[in-house]
Amino acid sequence: MTLKLYLAGPEVFLPNAREILDAKAELTRSYGFTPICPGDISIEPAPTRHEFGLKISAVDEGMMNSADGVIANLTPFRGIAADPGTAFELGYMCAQGKLVAAYTNVAENHFARTSAFYQGDVREWEDGRKRATDGTALEDFEMIENLMLHGGVERRGGPIIVHPAPADKLLTDLTGFEQCLKALAAIIAK
Amino acid sequence: MTLKLYLAGPEVFLPNAREILDAKAELTRSYGFTPICPGDISIEPAPTRHEFGLKISAVDEGMMNSADGVIANLTPFRGIAADPGTAFELGYMCAQGKLVAAYTNVAENHFARTSAFYQGDVREWEDGRKRATDGTALEDFEMIENLMLHGGVERRGGPIIVHPAPADKLLTDLTGFEQCLKALAAIIAK
Repeated sequence: MTLKLYLAGPEVFLPNAREILDAKAELTRSYGFTPICPGDISIEPAPTRHEFGLKISAVDEGMMNSADGVIANLTPFRGIAADPGTAFELGYMCAQGKLVAAYTNVAENHFARTSAFYQGDVREWEDGRKRATDGTALEDFEMIENLMLHGGVERRGGPIIVHPAPADKLLTDLTGFEQCLKALAAIIAK
Repeated sequence: MTLKLYLAGPEVFLPNAREILDAKAELTRSYGFTPICPGDISIEPAPTRHEFGLKISAVDEGMMNSADGVIANLTPFRGIAADPGTAFELGYMCAQGKLVAAYTNVAENHFARTSAFYQGDVREWEDGRKRATDGTALEDFEMIENLMLHGGVERRGGPIIVHPAPADKLLTDLTGFEQCLKALAAIIAK
């Protein structure tokens, strides 16, 4: 029986989401896993938009419950951070003790991106923390995201892949995704 | 025995984080719960910053494992979305089937904030989805965040509180937080 992997990431919002998810699914199968993608199950209409959103939430959680692991695309989306839906899903799968992997298609780590958000105006305060002009502290742990996400994966022995993709392929480049598959396959083979 | 609530939110990054967390803890106790805050446990030094980050991740996950529920502050942080660490933690607690609650200190919902990110240039495409100029789809489900976060809480019967706070109190106003406590206390009393 092959292990099932839930494929989490903001590419679901792309106009060609189906195409990207199909490509991810094919790669996933080529490494001996069964892919589970948000969007695989068609969701029945609901009386309101709100209720439709709740249905999608239920279906996606059900997919995660049935999966043995997750590969999370943590490439920044609409700002400096990972898509919050993907962050939620990674936490959900970490809590279930499942196989976890993450990748990002940008080279700049969490600290570099957050510093850039403040135009680099970040200084060490008397409390020893690096803080921005608004006083908020920046995590500087050489991690690709907030420590809960990066730490949640790394502490479970999962791969964290950084592959700087061309600017026009930030949400579609699958190099880092494939490296996650390769690493998970090696973990399973042990 | 009182139920333990993990208090998740980006206020941990504030210069006066301890003060805010102490105020949250006191409110939490006043509603009959035991508060658990990130930062309550002092974390031993580590050889590298990276390893220190991993230690914090382990301690915070341990706190969540010992908690019976979470109140997540989903107020947008450094952009239009919730802090990704908080999103991860909310997913983590949803997966464990614990009590969940969320609040935000801004009035604009997820769709309004994301539309504003694109200067309102959002149109309905032929596929029936509302899309921005870059082609990415916007969720329009009358939710305060990505549907996995909002749906994860609402589907579990948890409160979702919206309290528009003054601009200078976005990360410190505790009105919505207290409403979550009140709602959770009512759920427990049933």
